[in-house]
Amino acid sequence: MYNEKMIKLGKERSDIRELFEYAVERKKIVGSENVFDFSLGNPGVPAPPSVAAETERLLREMPAEALHGYSSAPGIYEVRAAVADYIRSQFGAPMDPALVYMTCGASASLTIVLNAVLNAGDEVVVPAPFFPEYRVFIEQAGGKLVIAPTDENFRLDATLLAPYINARTRAVLINSPNNPSGVVYTEGEIAALSQLLREKSAGRETPILLLADEPYRELTYGAKVPYVMRHYEHSLVLYSFSKSLSLAGERIGYIAVSPKCHGARELFSAVCGAGRALGYVCAPVLFQRVVAKCLGQSSDVERYRQNRDLLYGALTEYGYRCTVPEGAFYLFVRSPEPDTRAFCRRAREHELLLVPSDSFGVRGYVRISYCVPHSVIERSLPAFKALMEEYR
Amino acid sequence: MYNEKMIKLGKERSDIRELFEYAVERKKIVGSENVFDFSLGNPGVPAPPSVAAETERLLREMPAEALHGYSSAPGIYEVRAAVADYIRSQFGAPMDPALVYMTCGASASLTIVLNAVLNAGDEVVVPAPFFPEYRVFIEQAGGKLVIAPTDENFRLDATLLAPYINARTRAVLINSPNNPSGVVYTEGEIAALSQLLREKSAGRETPILLLADEPYRELTYGAKVPYVMRHYEHSLVLYSFSKSLSLAGERIGYIAVSPKCHGARELFSAVCGAGRALGYVCAPVLFQRVVAKCLGQSSDVERYRQNRDLLYGALTEYGYRCTVPEGAFYLFVRSPEPDTRAFCRRAREHELLLVPSDSFGVRGYVRISYCVPHSVIERSLPAFKALMEEYR
Repeated sequence: MYNEKMIKLGKERSDIRELFEYAVERKKIVGSENVFDFSLGNPGVPAPPSVAAETERLLREMPAEALHGYSSAPGIYEVRAAVADYIRSQFGAPMDPALVYMTCGASASLTIVLNAVLNAGDEVVVPAPFFPEYRVFIEQAGGKLVIAPTDENFRLDATLLAPYINARTRAVLINSPNNPSGVVYTEGEIAALSQLLREKSAGRETPILLLADEPYRELTYGAKVPYVMRHYEHSLVLYSFSKSLSLAGERIGYIAVSPKCHGARELFSAVCGAGRALGYVCAPVLFQRVVAKCLGQSSDVERYRQNRDLLYGALTEYGYRCTVPEGAFYLFVRSPEPDTRAFCRRAREHELLLVPSDSFGVRGYVRISYCVPHSVIERSLPAFKALMEEYR
Repeated sequence: MYNEKMIKLGKERSDIRELFEYAVERKKIVGSENVFDFSLGNPGVPAPPSVAAETERLLREMPAEALHGYSSAPGIYEVRAAVADYIRSQFGAPMDPALVYMTCGASASLTIVLNAVLNAGDEVVVPAPFFPEYRVFIEQAGGKLVIAPTDENFRLDATLLAPYINARTRAVLINSPNNPSGVVYTEGEIAALSQLLREKSAGRETPILLLADEPYRELTYGAKVPYVMRHYEHSLVLYSFSKSLSLAGERIGYIAVSPKCHGARELFSAVCGAGRALGYVCAPVLFQRVVAKCLGQSSDVERYRQNRDLLYGALTEYGYRCTVPEGAFYLFVRSPEPDTRAFCRRAREHELLLVPSDSFGVRGYVRISYCVPHSVIERSLPAFKALMEEYR
């Protein structure tokens, strides 16, 4: 028959995607204004105006055959150079355009890097909670996901992570600002993790890699996001413009390999090889050019902050328990009953679409994506209140 | 160390990509007008005006957050429906929007389908010559490429292909109009192949699939391209808009699974699963919307015809041997010496960048991509002439 593993993956879908599809259908029945869809991290704040301005300029000024033609496999050189310049000037980390690979978004950044660095059976340690598709991507690349705990507030704690590192550990994969917890790891936390990785790498032929998945870097409410390459030499940054520039559907991002990485050139060859094998050469070119002019910009974070403040304030008032997110656009809320899926089903009866935390690697929570229009949050509050009253 | 297979793939690069990179460097040295780069199938004729018009309309009329946000994993429903409508009306083949998966270009169409249908060790029979990355994609999906011959003019001949089909054969993968030969398979040739596949599938639990890779469908010089689904029920069409709409760098295409395929729904689930595992959910959305309005259109094929006629006429006059291409934009020319790589090196001394046929699965030929500005062909002719004179 066809590939059973793929059939299974295709049928089960992720909790998030399933809710997204459910929402589409449900809205047809009860009206889109009556469904409070907090399932997907689809940016609700528009791209900054510079995105449209640059897109229109390119369409106007470049001949179509040059604008839309193939780029070199790892991307347009000038774009890679702009990314490298930005990393150097903004973060004070060394970077070489020859070590930047433009990708078709965050998923591509992850699958390419994982296929490039993993050999069969290699382990990737991931602090929980984490983006559920990490498991799919790691396993597809022949690796094994190893879940490490964080502290009770989901903060990175090197001493809690240490026991999960062994001789098969090829990489640690972190995501800060974190989806789904909203935690931003501090300089101290990253420094401690780096120290641990240095110790654990001693005597190994190839050091353990630190992979930083950073689609939410620019979306913080005051917290500073440390740049991993400044703390640990064997680092790769996996970036996407999906959230920062509200371009989730355009699939554009990059991989940056630290020049200080053990065998950086060899590692970059593996990135090129994995890109080739998976069919990921030449990321979408129009948006390669657009993002090169919008580096470091972001959509209006204030609007996410307003959403966060309204939702966090109301939910804690109603009796929900959660910590205030420092970045990204998710609220991670403790389920009032132990069975989170049962809680989510009950929420659904109030037309509230929430994602259970089980597939994020922790139990007992739900994720609320508040990257929606402010009015959706306003209108949803009575439903959240009524839902909690069922638990009194 | 890192993944050795990927390092190797990344280092060797393809002949085509290597020449492309060489051309970039060489042009810096001798001036771009003095390098005759026939290496890459990068469309030189601009996209039809409807592409820019539709792009600009979308930018103007749709709110940015809706325009650039995520679509459903297999694509925007209305876009999938438009593709299905087009297939039904244009080709008279049944099609269901639920069996259309929008992809990030031809490579993605191939890697997704191969990962969806192959189990470890399954064989894919490919008539030669063929696009060299087929080997990489098939092997990455755990399969084995089996090269079948075509006739002396590179025409599809079911009797020549038959001995290469066995119990491990999961699919036959064809590409018409063909890269690199320019041959367009006739209705009779496709009918004979279909009859063969029906015979060979008798008594099997799952019939052999016919995969049609069709990025050049609209680029023909009068030849009609049969629609495989009308001939064989267990067919998938793997399409890309890269060449037809001159959007090679934008990475947009689709997979269409025939509703008559054995276990079509199950097969489509496998496509969704493979898309998910490889990170290919939600193809670039702006161009999903653009191509939905440009189905069946193409860039100006007359300009490719003028290139073909000039090049074919001059080269045969100089003593080169080749058949006239019926479609696509490649001339497949017999090498005047048995060692094609030696011939290509000699051509390079005349600043002619040609691709040796070895990696296309046949020996003794070179591929000339004539999708370049007409003036490049005009200026290159003395070089072609001088090159042939070295062989007299």
